[in-house]
Formats: sequence, C-alpha cells, structure tokens
Amino acid sequence: MQLAMTFDAVADFLDREFPQAGVAGMGARLDALAPGRLTLALDAGERHLRPGGTVSGPSLFALADVAAYLCILAHIGPVMHVVTTNMSINFLTKPSPGLLRAEASLLKLGRRLAVVEIAIRGAADELPAAHAVGTYSIPPKQPTPSRIVAVS
Amino acid sequence: MQLAMTFDAVADFLDREFPQAGVAGMGARLDALAPGRLTLALDAGERHLRPGGTVSGPSLFALADVAAYLCILAHIGPVMHVVTTNMSINFLTKPSPGLLRAEASLLKLGRRLAVVEIAIRGAADELPAAHAVGTYSIPPKQPTPSRIVAVS
Amino acid sequence: MQLAMTFDAVADFLDREFPQAGVAGMGARLDALAPGRLTLALDAGERHLRPGGTVSGPSLFALADVAAYLCILAHIGPVMHVVTTNMSINFLTKPSPGLLRAEASLLKLGRRLAVVEIAIRGAADELPAAHAVGTYSIPPKQPTPSRIVAVS
Amino acid sequence: MQLAMTFDAVADFLDREFPQAGVAGMGARLDALAPGRLTLALDAGERHLRPGGTVSGPSLFALADVAAYLCILAHIGPVMHVVTTNMSINFLTKPSPGLLRAEASLLKLGRRLAVVEIAIRGAADELPAAHAVGTYSIPPKQPTPSRIVAVS
Repeated sequence: MQLAMTFDAVADFLDREFPQAGVAGMGARLDALAPGRLTLALDAGERHLRPGGTVSGPSLFALADVAAYLCILAHIGPVMHVVTTNMSINFLTKPSPGLLRAEASLLKLGRRLAVVEIAIRGAADELPAAHAVGTYSIPPKQPTPSRIVAVS
Repeated sequence: MQLAMTFDAVADFLDREFPQAGVAGMGARLDALAPGRLTLALDAGERHLRPGGTVSGPSLFALADVAAYLCILAHIGPVMHVVTTNMSINFLTKPSPGLLRAEASLLKLGRRLAVVEIAIRGAADELPAAHAVGTYSIPPKQPTPSRIVAVS
Repeated sequence: MQLAMTFDAVADFLDREFPQAGVAGMGARLDALAPGRLTLALDAGERHLRPGGTVSGPSLFALADVAAYLCILAHIGPVMHVVTTNMSINFLTKPSPGLLRAEASLLKLGRRLAVVEIAIRGAADELPAAHAVGTYSIPPKQPTPSRIVAVS
Repeated sequence: MQLAMTFDAVADFLDREFPQAGVAGMGARLDALAPGRLTLALDAGERHLRPGGTVSGPSLFALADVAAYLCILAHIGPVMHVVTTNMSINFLTKPSPGLLRAEASLLKLGRRLAVVEIAIRGAADELPAAHAVGTYSIPPKQPTPSRIVAVS
C-alpha cells in the first residue's frame, strides 16, 4: 500500500472539508500518517461530553468515520464521492475526557470497496474505548474524455 | 411486550434528557408509540446537512441511537444506565432534506441485553435511507432494600 | 421491485447450487417468494444441533446467507458472482429444534451493492431467534458483445 | 490480562468440545496463546471449499467464532455458557486453499460481556482474507454454595 497524499495535504483537506460542523470543528487534527494507517487526535472538550462526563456516542462515531475516510483518501487521493456504506461500532469502556486518538487501519483497498478498522483510545489506555469497522464505496473512475463510439 | 411508560412520559423524557446538544435539539419529537415499537420524527434542517444537501451520517446515527434507547425505556421505565454496546448502521440511499421518520422495533428485550432494529425513511419513501441494529446493556436490577444475610 | 425469476426457477437453483454440503443439504427449501421478500424453511434436524439441543451459530449464519443471496438473485436473475461482503448477525434466543423460517427482505438493491435483512424464527414464535443484515457485491454488467471502438 | 488456562488445556478443550461436527473436525488446531491473544490454524481442505476453490463463508464464520470463544475461555477458564450474541464479519479477499490462521484479540473482557476481534489470513498474506468482531455474553458467576438467606 502506497500513500497518494502527504501529511500536510491530508491535514489541509481535514481543515477545509470538515470545518465548523465537523470533526475539525471538534478540534480533531491529523496526528500520524503511514502506509495503511492514519491517526487523528481529539482534545475531547465539553462540547462532546454527555452529562456523565463521557464523550458521546455520535461524537465517537463521527471521529471514527472521518479517520477512516481520510485514511482511504490518503491512499487514493482526494476523491470526493467516497461514501460510508456500513459502520459497525462497539462502545467498550467509558473514555474519560482528555486526549483521544483514533487509529484507522486499512483492511482492504479494492477498486470499488474499502474496509477500515478504527480503534479509539485514551492517551494512556492500552485497550480501546471504542472500536469500529467501516465499509466505504469508491466511485468508478471517470472515463478519460476520449470519444467512445459503440458500433452494434 | 408491554409498555411501562405513556406517550407523554416518553415525550417529556426526550425533551428533558436530550435538550440542546442532543436529538431533541435537532428538532426530533416523539411521533408514535406502541408495544414493541417507537417512532421519532425529525424535520431535517440545515444544521444536519452536509454540503451535498444530505443529512450527515453522525446525525442519522444519533437519531437511530436515541430512537432505540427510548424504545427500550418505554418498555422498562426510565432507567438511566442503559448504554449502547454495539450499533451497526447501513447507509442505503441519500435521504433528501425534509421530514425523516426513525422507526425502532424491539428484536429482543432480555434482562441484561436488548436488541433494537431501526429504519429511517423519508416521509414518502418505501425503502429506508438508513437501517441500523443496536445492542444495549441493561444494568442489573438494584436489590430491593431488604436485608440480605449470607451465612457461610 | 420486480422479480426476475419464478418460484420454481429459484427452487431449482437452490437444489442445484447448494446440494450436499450447503443449505439444501441441510434440508432447506424455498417456502415463499414475493417482490422484495423470500422465505426459506428448514427442518432443523440433528445435524445442526449443538450438545445443548440448539441449532448451531454457523448453521444459522449459513441459512441467513443463502436466504439473502437467493432473494437478490430472484430480483436480478441467476448471476453467479454475487458475493457476501459483510454479514452482521445477532443471536437473540435459543431456537428450539423444529421448523425454522428465514425471511429475507431487500433493504436496498443498487447496481453495485444490495443490502438484505434476514429474520429467523421458530414456527410459532413472534420474535426472531436470530436476525442478520448482509451486504452483497454485485458484479458489473458484462458489456454486451457489440464492438466497442474508442477514438481518441 | 492474565491467562487462566495453559496452551495444553485449551488444546484439549478444543478437541473435546468441538469434535467431528465442529472446527476441530475441520482440522483446526491451537497454534499460539498469549495474554489477550489466541491463534487457530486450519489446513483448509476440500471439505470447506466452494466450487470456485475458496473456503466457504460459514466455515470462515465458524473458525472466527471458535477462535474468539476459546480466546475468552483461556482468560476466564472453561465456563461452558459463554454464548455469541453478535458477530459482524467482513469477507475481504478470496482466501486460497492452504493454511489459514485465525488470530483472535480481546478488545474487552468485562464481567458480563467480552468483545473479540478476529483476523483470518492465508499463511503468506499481510492483509486479512476475512475480519470479524464478535460480542459474547458471560453468565453471572454462580454463587458459591454458601447458604443465602433473605430476610425481608
């Protein structure tokens, strides 16, 4: 597996495409990038906390989804129409507030489908607070603009 | 399956426990309640829209999660420590903006685990825009405050 | 949704393609077919039983998978290369031995992906013993054998 | 995480509890055991092959399920009533016949629920052929046979 984007290109894409409402608006930032892997870091602040003081399920879902999506784009380039088709997420332990890391690993990068595993951990934790596996649909490559003539 | 809460009690609980940041803050309201089933309605407004004009994945996830959670509470009473342990969600078609309905159906209501299926549909659609199945952990019943004496 | 195969054509396909080792070898037979839905019936005999007297998880998985696969083929014709990409299955109650029905319902039938929900119930049960959601990849249509000429 | 069973005890349990019909009958054997991890090896022979020459989905499901189950027992002892409540499996690439390894890793080992991730790989492959995450219910500890007297 080879990267198609640099760390800086992915970090810029994150800031540009997921600004206020999204995960960058949460304070997520690119933490690490290597072939097959990408890590986001999030300073889980008050906005994402439930009354009990834990990060909300939808915030963890969003963090996992964006980490997986960026991990795919980092390997195929900034194709805009990659879409989530399935996400299965397990909430394992209540993560305490503080720095969270979401580490995405490619399980498959096919022409039409990519499958990514994501583990979300508190800074000091060995076992994940949440774990997800997502499937993403990759749009067919646009035909290059040559003229195509079918003769039946 | 028998209900343990009335429509009004569930509607009040939704307003009280999921106010600004949550699904009630999105504009979700209780739409229907019957044994084994609960429906939320959401006027999907701008806040939940991605650039493409569709409702975001995390918003659909949150809607499914709250519909399932309320469906369980409606049958066991307002136990606060029911927690989501797993949610598997399929994004099937891009839902257009407008009224969405999330219909939750109990697949299992055990003493320790409940499993709920959720279909999210646009008002006029037959097939769902998203479909999820969630597993929820139910805390052990607190022992009634009788005295318990263990004699070894 | 329109059917592309008759009841008899699907029943023949089941016998031919899943003979000894498969689900037909288990004794599964086509029970019902309608637009969007297909039901298999299985007389759960000794072969599928675990020591405790229940149908094994892999047998329930196989039954759900074949019901979903046939439900897709019934709508697109006997395309051989439809493959399971994901299956999420919940085991809800111990099914007792005896007649089981696996009812598959199409949630989505796209050009590249189909998503099917499957509920497996004992003959007299209202709630399912197992519930699954599967995603299937549909191969791209073979170009019809007309001559294709690309002029750059 | 600490092991509660030795390699030999787990290997014996596998042979005894999953004989002909099960995964040991497939030829699966214990390959490695360490805190948090257990690996099964399977010489995928003809019995598990579909016409196309690949291992069948239900065989991969069974292999993942047994690897996860044994991984839990290795850490809590041979408790018989651990049951699979959910399994989500992704089929990623067609595994070729030959040696398969199923590596199970504990994501959570709680008192009531355990969550295990399983990657199945061909001997020479870096990326998995299949990947699954399973949730298992652990029965409440039997009270030690002291006399319990409730005085209301």
